[in-house]
Amino acid sequence: PALAPRPRRSLALTAALTMLCRALLLLVASASATNLLSLRGGQKEKEKVAIIGSGNWGSAIAKIIGRNVLALDNYDDEVCMWVFEEDINGKKLTEIINTEHENVKYLPGIKFTENVKAVPDVTDAVKDATMLVFVLPHQFLTRTCPKITGYASGCRALSLIKGIEFSETGPILISDMIKDEMKGMDVSVLMGANVANEVARDEFCESTVGYKVKAHGEAFQAMLDCPTFRVGQIQDVAGTELCGALKNVVALGAGFCDGLELGGNTKAAIIRIGLKETMKFAKMFFKGIKDETFMESCGLADLVTTCFGGRNRKCAEAFARKEGTWDEIEADKLNGQKLQGTITCKDVMVVLKNKGVEDQFPLFKRINEIAFEGAPVETIIEL
Amino acid sequence: PALAPRPRRSLALTAALTMLCRALLLLVASASATNLLSLRGGQKEKEKVAIIGSGNWGSAIAKIIGRNVLALDNYDDEVCMWVFEEDINGKKLTEIINTEHENVKYLPGIKFTENVKAVPDVTDAVKDATMLVFVLPHQFLTRTCPKITGYASGCRALSLIKGIEFSETGPILISDMIKDEMKGMDVSVLMGANVANEVARDEFCESTVGYKVKAHGEAFQAMLDCPTFRVGQIQDVAGTELCGALKNVVALGAGFCDGLELGGNTKAAIIRIGLKETMKFAKMFFKGIKDETFMESCGLADLVTTCFGGRNRKCAEAFARKEGTWDEIEADKLNGQKLQGTITCKDVMVVLKNKGVEDQFPLFKRINEIAFEGAPVETIIEL
Repeated sequence: PALAPRPRRSLALTAALTMLCRALLLLVASASATNLLSLRGGQKEKEKVAIIGSGNWGSAIAKIIGRNVLALDNYDDEVCMWVFEEDINGKKLTEIINTEHENVKYLPGIKFTENVKAVPDVTDAVKDATMLVFVLPHQFLTRTCPKITGYASGCRALSLIKGIEFSETGPILISDMIKDEMKGMDVSVLMGANVANEVARDEFCESTVGYKVKAHGEAFQAMLDCPTFRVGQIQDVAGTELCGALKNVVALGAGFCDGLELGGNTKAAIIRIGLKETMKFAKMFFKGIKDETFMESCGLADLVTTCFGGRNRKCAEAFARKEGTWDEIEADKLNGQKLQGTITCKDVMVVLKNKGVEDQFPLFKRINEIAFEGAPVETIIEL
Repeated sequence: PALAPRPRRSLALTAALTMLCRALLLLVASASATNLLSLRGGQKEKEKVAIIGSGNWGSAIAKIIGRNVLALDNYDDEVCMWVFEEDINGKKLTEIINTEHENVKYLPGIKFTENVKAVPDVTDAVKDATMLVFVLPHQFLTRTCPKITGYASGCRALSLIKGIEFSETGPILISDMIKDEMKGMDVSVLMGANVANEVARDEFCESTVGYKVKAHGEAFQAMLDCPTFRVGQIQDVAGTELCGALKNVVALGAGFCDGLELGGNTKAAIIRIGLKETMKFAKMFFKGIKDETFMESCGLADLVTTCFGGRNRKCAEAFARKEGTWDEIEADKLNGQKLQGTITCKDVMVVLKNKGVEDQFPLFKRINEIAFEGAPVETIIEL
């Protein structure tokens, strides 16, 4: 041993350096992989969720998230929910929510866990957040986002907004609108067969997170999944989101069938053709669309629910029964809510006509003809 | 020209021989491709359809086929329908059908075209037929087929029978049972969202022919397709047939949801998971299964119809409401018809357990536990 001291020292040094390097690499890898490690003190920095919106669906999801984070070690207990302030019988809605733990206006009868905190100022609501949940009418995005773009660099977003925008050249995803407004923030989406009141009552249902970045999809899944609200995930934002938007058009066709008192066979055929046209539309305008997406909750299951239970179906049934114009029916049946399917239907037709491909979408075309061009409702079956 | 007479004659001879060969090849190709050309007199031999069975579904399809063949040049006008003879108020059922053109027992109120001929002897019914439509309870196959195997070499078959048989090693398709009984006859299948009475009333619906031989699929499509009964086709007999069989198991789960008064979200989730397990089951036991099959009418559409309207759903709802045993409920609700879903459910579980894969099918397993092993109905959502 005395014969070779230098090589030994050298080996020991190499080994020490290697270990140090490995430790550093591991540290860096962990930090960059999860965004959770704070180097100050080596403590994990917890995820903090902010919900932007507090209507019926926003409140239902606040109940789920609020309860879930209490059981998750790496999520901060407090969930801030931005509430557009309103006066309810002389009291502020935020105060009612924070004392009674219930959104008495939009989700009466359902209690939040106490860690859900209503905040009237959206900038305050997203303070310290790492995960933003967008669940407000998409018309409000352009005035809300500029107040919170300061959080863009550190946050990831999840959009629960079902709808779609259109330019003359094609459809624009709401998730892409949010991404643009939020300076390139990564945006996942949540779509599925989720009637808000049923979710809030803990009835069993499923939903789908469509993500681009796998780690983000997994973080949102952990935030949402629970025994009664089962969340799947798929790497296909556009496919997931388009399912959520176009189902409302198909539901108009389903409603026409109901108004004509056609049987279950006919409605099943409309649902099937509608899902196939949705798939074709998605593939025509976006890349990376996966066939499997349409078999997830966001596709098949949401479409079935909407075609049997949704508000677009209900109004289209009334239209088929000649109970009034769309505006009259909307005012009569929806208690202030908006009919999304008719708007989407018109927009979809503009895009298809501009591209000269409307004949490849016989169901969407026929629904539009019946809804807006005076075609007899009976022609819904002439496909 | 006079300098080279031989090559010219040779060329002319070659040309003539070539033409002759081409004509012969064309003749042979046409004949073998369509089976329609009779070389005697060069006249087309017409297709002749025989329907084996005359219950509710058999009668509905007889109405469609009878009307269709009248408009098709290459189909014989006469459609024979084998009717199991019964006495109806002192008259023979076949006589009533042949004079009143109505199956007063199994499809009252619906008139056949006059070319549909009821025949009490199955051997007489299939005489001269080129296309056999099997639409009888599959329990009758082993006693009926031996009487008509003499027609096996020249005929092709279509099975409308929804069900499945099981050996200890795995599932046996009804179409394969027919094929075996009929000495290797090629058998296609027709499955879809087709409630017999709605089809008979000409309500719009779709169906799917699953075929092995493309020309046969096309011939059956031509025989069946009409503006209200739209027939698609796909080269996947097993996938198409399994959709028709397993939907009844899923419908039990849907009925449990209804009995528990769960919402539309829950039922949509059951339908979606059910379709995925059907797909997985098909791929596990049969080759050549196509994903697209499950998006055809036989898959998605039939499952939706069955889970909202079928008899398995109805009886499972009653079971969930604790209205009796399966036998009591069947006797009470089905007016003599049989509950297919419970039988299929048990058989499916035997096969899955034998293969040791039951845990890969949580929905099928849970439905079986609730239906036959005393598990609380409420556990239907614990998947």
